[in-house]
Amino acid sequence: MNSFITLCQQSIGEEHVLLDEFDLQPYLTEWRKRATGKAIAIVLPATTEEVSALVKLCVQFNINIVPQGGNTGLVIGSIPTRTSDVIDTIVLSLRRLNRIRSVDATNNTMIVEAGCQLHTVQDAATQHERLFPLSLASEGSCTIGGNLSTNAGGTAVLRYGNMRDLCLGLEVVTADGEIWNGLRGLRKDNTGYDLRDLYIGAEGTLGIITAAVLKLFPKPTAQFTALCAVNNIEDAVSLLHFTQNQCANKLTAFELISKFALSLVQKHFPHLSNTIPTKSPYYVLLEISEYKSESEIERMNQLEMVCEKAFENHLIQDAIIATSNEQAKTLWQLRESISEAQAKEGKNIKHDISLPISSIANFVQQTDALLQQAYPTCRLVTFGHVGDGNLHYNVSPPIGEDAQEFLAQQNQINRIVYDSVNQFNGSISAEHGIGTLKKEELVLYKSATELNLMRAIKLALDPHNIMNPGKII
Amino acid sequence: MNSFITLCQQSIGEEHVLLDEFDLQPYLTEWRKRATGKAIAIVLPATTEEVSALVKLCVQFNINIVPQGGNTGLVIGSIPTRTSDVIDTIVLSLRRLNRIRSVDATNNTMIVEAGCQLHTVQDAATQHERLFPLSLASEGSCTIGGNLSTNAGGTAVLRYGNMRDLCLGLEVVTADGEIWNGLRGLRKDNTGYDLRDLYIGAEGTLGIITAAVLKLFPKPTAQFTALCAVNNIEDAVSLLHFTQNQCANKLTAFELISKFALSLVQKHFPHLSNTIPTKSPYYVLLEISEYKSESEIERMNQLEMVCEKAFENHLIQDAIIATSNEQAKTLWQLRESISEAQAKEGKNIKHDISLPISSIANFVQQTDALLQQAYPTCRLVTFGHVGDGNLHYNVSPPIGEDAQEFLAQQNQINRIVYDSVNQFNGSISAEHGIGTLKKEELVLYKSATELNLMRAIKLALDPHNIMNPGKII
Repeated sequence: MNSFITLCQQSIGEEHVLLDEFDLQPYLTEWRKRATGKAIAIVLPATTEEVSALVKLCVQFNINIVPQGGNTGLVIGSIPTRTSDVIDTIVLSLRRLNRIRSVDATNNTMIVEAGCQLHTVQDAATQHERLFPLSLASEGSCTIGGNLSTNAGGTAVLRYGNMRDLCLGLEVVTADGEIWNGLRGLRKDNTGYDLRDLYIGAEGTLGIITAAVLKLFPKPTAQFTALCAVNNIEDAVSLLHFTQNQCANKLTAFELISKFALSLVQKHFPHLSNTIPTKSPYYVLLEISEYKSESEIERMNQLEMVCEKAFENHLIQDAIIATSNEQAKTLWQLRESISEAQAKEGKNIKHDISLPISSIANFVQQTDALLQQAYPTCRLVTFGHVGDGNLHYNVSPPIGEDAQEFLAQQNQINRIVYDSVNQFNGSISAEHGIGTLKKEELVLYKSATELNLMRAIKLALDPHNIMNPGKII
Repeated sequence: MNSFITLCQQSIGEEHVLLDEFDLQPYLTEWRKRATGKAIAIVLPATTEEVSALVKLCVQFNINIVPQGGNTGLVIGSIPTRTSDVIDTIVLSLRRLNRIRSVDATNNTMIVEAGCQLHTVQDAATQHERLFPLSLASEGSCTIGGNLSTNAGGTAVLRYGNMRDLCLGLEVVTADGEIWNGLRGLRKDNTGYDLRDLYIGAEGTLGIITAAVLKLFPKPTAQFTALCAVNNIEDAVSLLHFTQNQCANKLTAFELISKFALSLVQKHFPHLSNTIPTKSPYYVLLEISEYKSESEIERMNQLEMVCEKAFENHLIQDAIIATSNEQAKTLWQLRESISEAQAKEGKNIKHDISLPISSIANFVQQTDALLQQAYPTCRLVTFGHVGDGNLHYNVSPPIGEDAQEFLAQQNQINRIVYDSVNQFNGSISAEHGIGTLKKEELVLYKSATELNLMRAIKLALDPHNIMNPGKII
């Protein structure tokens, strides 16, 4: 083991191999503090070649590797979780691999390294009058490598797709330490198997993504936001189609928020409470982006027209249309404060699920009923990216009862929710991934055939099982 | 062998196992008649279960399988090509697996079987007031299974993506005859490795796609088309960005056509020649789609405005803006007649390549010069989907010289073109795939690391090497 560490130090410099228990902790603790792991060392390479050298050492010494970006994941996927007596794992942090290698504004692409933080990439795109559309709550600290490895989603998926759709090419260090240069900035390339999409979403279990070619887009010249009151989820889905038929891809966000979710924001963020309507059972936050000069926008603002027509068709009961950027920001704050408001309210049981859009209303109706039957006083916090079929369907403990006792029922509650998701052909993880948190559930809901295909791929690309072992499968 | 055939007949019915030499020929001959293969039989299953039963028989008897859709591919990928003395291959045609299983207009999805022809799928979408955007020259006979297996492209990729982007889920019969049901109609699903994208574009070498969930879109209410004269490719690329900045995703087509390509259309389709301008070295066919009611379109037609501004900025020299659907159709005919005009002119050497959009102009300039240096009288037919970086860069024999002698130089000409493509980080197959036609070239231009990863996946998912052997790798 000592010679392994010495060789690591020789490869990347002594100061980039952390060994001190105190230094290790931030890399070994899951950010929501649900788990802590053990590691021999944290290694911080600064180049792809250094990553390659380290992986080759790990193969030689049979050491496991947990690749890590910003360590902001939600499924305990980026820390060591093996509980053997012998510590045989390193965390390989990509933080120092954080250069923007190039921006090609004419090709609408940029090449960035895995350790670049998302906000840095967004800013670099802006500097070139382009948009990199991925937008997440953790954008201030998450990294592109993590975004790719978990196929991150967020609020812009409706228009721009998830991380998989925003990436044209990858550079990967394979599980045997070879460097695959797949940094192609091409929109079309039919030359063999799609290795790119295999590494994307693999949560570091097949190899280490070290750099990527990202897609850039024209920057909208203006955005219009409204919060619409709807009677039920059916109407929200009808409003989605109505708006898409009118505006097609100019619709850049369509977020559902339940009355109870809004009331939590009202309770915990009193400064926002003036702007919060609470009459309707559900609200939709929608955003339309324009790409025209200002004078044209003036006469072309479609949002008002869409809201008017939707009102005439009884799809919406009411609407607040932001008349300034500031007001738009406030409406978005309502949406973005839900998670924090929930946290202030206390612990809860979270589900990041997706469904065919045509089944969302029935799913919510059925699952609400099943949960209220089993736990009559539980509180349901329902919100999410309805345009993508993605719900954050969270269950809060009853007021005044023992929260711990309720939270101890998590397995039973998950079973009710996920069985229902499964019945409607949905997914138990829409955008967060599997990690260790949903590993056992994956086996419950995936067919043996699919699991066998996944195992065959894992064995083919990581034959020594050293890449983030214990995650996904 | 006899017992294998008897078991096949028992599985799917005697009349669906073709054995007669005469019946076999259409399935064994490549449509451009460049190759003919040999097979024991053509089997025509009608259900996924029948496909599964047949594959299991093939595993048992060690028989190779060539899956086939419409047999309209361009890289000799859908007929047997092995030249051993023993005939040990069947062609498994998906033609009878041609049901549209369901349409979910609210989810904007439909589930179709692999043998559905593309035009049938387009029509079914239209019947539900939706758009299935894939659009190809062969849409009257190609099938969805073939479109998926070759990750088909076409003229709508700029706005809607290629076939990979139009598919949410698959049903696949694996190489050991198991049925993987991955028919999920979900926009977000992060539950393990991306098997879908692995089978898409694998040209039938990893398993047999039997059905798919396809994405549908709102149907545009109107489309506006123009043919713009540009001085050079740099200006065409500038016009692309200018238009995208103005219209974003309303730009649904952007096709480059060289003067010489248009002159071939003029020569061989005299009835179109009135509409053909021939002053400029290059032309761009562009199309803008609107999603509004007719009265709104009236005042919002952006195409005229864009052309005006582009003219003011000296990006274009002239423009024909179609004033009727019929005129728009004629402009599209110019584009769509190029391949046929080329065929009428005689054989030529075709290249389906892609490049970073920022490199197209330099690539064409450099490669034109290299070719003209080596073959001073060759004629270059350059056209394609510039918005996707995809060029059809074809080389025609000189007029008045021996065409056969020129065509015999194909390998040397390919080398000049593909070396240049490689130097600009492009792809030697943008949308047609590899098949057997580009198999040797793949080895020249892919890294050993990438080829090894592809081989590892092939071995993992098709361990007996019975799935379309000899294709891709």
